[in-house]
Amino acid sequence: MTDTAPVGIVAASGGLPLKLAAELQSRGRAVYIVSLDGMADADYSGHDHDSIRIGALSRIIDALKTRGCREIVLAGKFVRPRIATSFPDALASKIMVKLFTRGDNAALEMLAEVLAGHGMTIIDKGEILGNHRAGEGVLAGAEPRDEAMVSINHARHVLETMSDFDIGQAVLVQGQRVIAIEAAEGTDMMLERCAGLIDPDLAPAVLVKMMKSAQSRHLDPPVIGCLTIEKAALAGVSVVAVETGGVLIADLDETLRMAEARGISLIGVGRS
Amino acid sequence: MTDTAPVGIVAASGGLPLKLAAELQSRGRAVYIVSLDGMADADYSGHDHDSIRIGALSRIIDALKTRGCREIVLAGKFVRPRIATSFPDALASKIMVKLFTRGDNAALEMLAEVLAGHGMTIIDKGEILGNHRAGEGVLAGAEPRDEAMVSINHARHVLETMSDFDIGQAVLVQGQRVIAIEAAEGTDMMLERCAGLIDPDLAPAVLVKMMKSAQSRHLDPPVIGCLTIEKAALAGVSVVAVETGGVLIADLDETLRMAEARGISLIGVGRS
Repeated sequence: MTDTAPVGIVAASGGLPLKLAAELQSRGRAVYIVSLDGMADADYSGHDHDSIRIGALSRIIDALKTRGCREIVLAGKFVRPRIATSFPDALASKIMVKLFTRGDNAALEMLAEVLAGHGMTIIDKGEILGNHRAGEGVLAGAEPRDEAMVSINHARHVLETMSDFDIGQAVLVQGQRVIAIEAAEGTDMMLERCAGLIDPDLAPAVLVKMMKSAQSRHLDPPVIGCLTIEKAALAGVSVVAVETGGVLIADLDETLRMAEARGISLIGVGRS
Repeated sequence: MTDTAPVGIVAASGGLPLKLAAELQSRGRAVYIVSLDGMADADYSGHDHDSIRIGALSRIIDALKTRGCREIVLAGKFVRPRIATSFPDALASKIMVKLFTRGDNAALEMLAEVLAGHGMTIIDKGEILGNHRAGEGVLAGAEPRDEAMVSINHARHVLETMSDFDIGQAVLVQGQRVIAIEAAEGTDMMLERCAGLIDPDLAPAVLVKMMKSAQSRHLDPPVIGCLTIEKAALAGVSVVAVETGGVLIADLDETLRMAEARGISLIGVGRS
């Protein structure tokens, strides 16, 4: 990234967009931030930025183009907008319909295509932040027992079978019993409902998170971090397995420390 | 059922066991109730009954045999017991391990086998209560729009694909986007998390419930009733599709009335 053009950051809620801006600036890159009106909640006054509502997608693209941005980062917690209340322009409507009818990945790919048509590329925030692609084998905690490996294999089989439907990035298994499958609710919410469904006296409860086969590694990589480990521990999970090379680990050192502290084995596994 | 031996009712929580007992007695059948200690919460004092804890499965079977029961009904809301706190005997341990490692259906089949070895058969409570197997076509409400049929077909495909894993009896779809998949949490809890994930301004949200391919029609048929319709309506679902001949509808008239009142199309569909 020796580009002199600013990186365009499209900012949803939370502190991640500011963290990205700081990281990019520390590498000598300028940034221009479009904070999504009604969603972005951090203070962007210290940065070159404009606040634009998500429904005005053509205006967002114009603003990024006017600043000469060629690399775009989508950052922050993105709350799926309601069509009726976001007054989408023609372009936003098309992408929202895709989002709601075909899933995140299809919508993101369509957005990437539109941006590409304007000479802009979505770049990987994980790489900027130094997130780590999970390595192979035991990353933290004890070597999982044999019965945990049986559960991991079962979970992989479930995930791979469902992967074509653009669902099931994560699954929670105890023995060969599937406790929960993630669809639109996200891994955290899935973990929250599992506490009462796991019997802590039986085989280890195993969370497995992998890429969906249709998922773009680049646009929307699966990520785990401290919060995932914390929620897994609260639910009674003892093994977290993530796809080697596919799932990103945010704040690697802290996440590994957290896994050790909570008695969770964190391991990297390949596809079956 | 011209048998003079009492029907054995193994009673978990809620009022269903009493309802079954009344229904059987109105047909001239005697009943003997084993109320599960710590789970059964209705008043069985008016009936020939014993209270036995679920972990003492051999004692339960002995009690049923002693009364001469040859037909057994499992009734009420069964809360999955924890192994450590239910002090299971050898037989209960075997079945609980099956339950937790292989799922409900495998455990039920093992229990049915054990009972068969003692000359006892599990009979269908749905038939006793006059539950109706869902018929084909529109059962209540308006004919679903074409886009709802597309969603139903997508959901059927998802359910049939996952069916071999003994999971996914129900799935909620909007457009071709899978909002939620049921695993161990049950249809009601699944519906509860969907409200925030459905956009009411888009394609109709569709709940589809089918048999799992491994599911025993006899031992543990999928059932919907007024509560399902109520929860679906609260979540923003506008079409409920159930497998014709596979899913039971409890309290048929009341459930159909509820669907009409809540503006939900209830339809019976075959496998794809």
